[in-house]
Amino acid sequence: MSDGIVFIDGEYMRPEDATMSIFDAGFVWGDSVYDVTSTWNGRFFMLDEHLERFRRSCEGFRLENPRSFEEMRRICAECVHRAGLSNAYVKMQITRGAPAPGVSDPRSLIPSVVVYAIPYVWIWGEDKCRHGADLFVSGVERVSSKAIDQRFKNYNRADLVQARFEAYDHGCDDAILTGADGCLTEGPGFNVFIVREGAVASPDYNILEGITRRAVRELCEREGIPFELRKIRPDEIARASEVFASTTAGGVMPVTRVNGRPIGNGHAGIVTSRIQQAYWSGREAGWHGVGVSDVLAG
Amino acid sequence: MSDGIVFIDGEYMRPEDATMSIFDAGFVWGDSVYDVTSTWNGRFFMLDEHLERFRRSCEGFRLENPRSFEEMRRICAECVHRAGLSNAYVKMQITRGAPAPGVSDPRSLIPSVVVYAIPYVWIWGEDKCRHGADLFVSGVERVSSKAIDQRFKNYNRADLVQARFEAYDHGCDDAILTGADGCLTEGPGFNVFIVREGAVASPDYNILEGITRRAVRELCEREGIPFELRKIRPDEIARASEVFASTTAGGVMPVTRVNGRPIGNGHAGIVTSRIQQAYWSGREAGWHGVGVSDVLAG
Repeated sequence: MSDGIVFIDGEYMRPEDATMSIFDAGFVWGDSVYDVTSTWNGRFFMLDEHLERFRRSCEGFRLENPRSFEEMRRICAECVHRAGLSNAYVKMQITRGAPAPGVSDPRSLIPSVVVYAIPYVWIWGEDKCRHGADLFVSGVERVSSKAIDQRFKNYNRADLVQARFEAYDHGCDDAILTGADGCLTEGPGFNVFIVREGAVASPDYNILEGITRRAVRELCEREGIPFELRKIRPDEIARASEVFASTTAGGVMPVTRVNGRPIGNGHAGIVTSRIQQAYWSGREAGWHGVGVSDVLAG
Repeated sequence: MSDGIVFIDGEYMRPEDATMSIFDAGFVWGDSVYDVTSTWNGRFFMLDEHLERFRRSCEGFRLENPRSFEEMRRICAECVHRAGLSNAYVKMQITRGAPAPGVSDPRSLIPSVVVYAIPYVWIWGEDKCRHGADLFVSGVERVSSKAIDQRFKNYNRADLVQARFEAYDHGCDDAILTGADGCLTEGPGFNVFIVREGAVASPDYNILEGITRRAVRELCEREGIPFELRKIRPDEIARASEVFASTTAGGVMPVTRVNGRPIGNGHAGIVTSRIQQAYWSGREAGWHGVGVSDVLAG
């Protein structure tokens, strides 16, 4: 196992050597999109779904990926293989590219493709991702999809960072942001869910449409748990019996406190635990999976 | 004269060698702020005002600049001096820094400071900056200050990029964006102004408070031209006798067409030209200026 392997425009390198121009418009103009998938026990989870969402993000930002879907697929696998990782966090990104000094027309630039595999990441640390975190409903508004379409996964996330700082100020682990309409949207890199009277609900407005969220929906359907996507007002959290979150980097994660107050009895709830267990036993068994070696052999 | 000089955390280098880690949270989380000043005939314009706004941007993003105000001042001058430039575009920026793999807590990171001087930039090319550009009132909404406070100059600008693409689609040179309230805000890197019945007005909501805009206000006061900051609805453009824009990288710039339709007679207007001339003759004469060599000697 290594610290990881990074692919940049055709070359593989160590993470500490992975640099980009400070002039890349992907940085200077927030003009980049990305996606994150993972492997567990050497198998990708919903790889094609992530690649397909990445394709849509590129399209949404008018970023032309010089690599085909099949090339991206192989590069992801190659990074994990070269890194020698079994459980990997795998990111793909495209930036607009570095212009000649003073050039601001994005149409003239050559996009740069980066893919990397590093050891699997738990966004709140493994313990909190498995057993529960304390979230804070932030006063920072989530960037509106009317400004930057949040279905396209992108790095314009200063709102999420400031919300996270606010959460830390209040002794919490992370933040949930509301949108311009006052309803819940998402946290920094994860979708949120509430459980009430045995039914699961998740916001469907101004959010990234999570692949793990899609898996949660599928698991709910399989387990006979009612599931709906709808607007959720922050005050519904107080009446919820359970709250949880989902992301590639942590899976299905209990939220046991919000704004410092316990949800239910302050431990992971029954519905959350059922979905979480189904998710991880699925991952172990290769559900929606494709082996790294199969991608490379294919 | 060279292509420029870049300072990164204590070292000076050529622009082509100026790189950053692809893991820097300044890129990955949009967690960075910047400012741009310029020199003309070897003199900075309102240097301390730019440094002071940069200080406020850092504070607003909770980015601790390891360099003092005085150090920043000298580094800016040193870059221009080493680059051998008389007319320079000078950028300063701070990024959150590169975390260890998987770390997402911004509090643990060491910020990175970059300053560079490159040949003076005209955002629309010199001819259009001096004689007039065609702008498009975009359907893309400007990111709300409730999400990311636009008084703090930052790189979360995907909205501006997409608005610019939309402008190009309509055969225009650049975009003006409206805010959530439907009123005008700003364009990609510039403030906008309308002139009606001899009076100048500029939006004062959800914008970067431009230093050049401040200079425009001062020039209006000096020239006896009424000036106000207020909400401006897009339909006021059709009734305006003149429209112009301001930015460090172009100065005071006539907008001679909006959405393809001429403003007034389709040439730079009388009020715009007066302010533009006052601005450039001021720059030539060292108004609000401090010499690069004076900063270095000080």
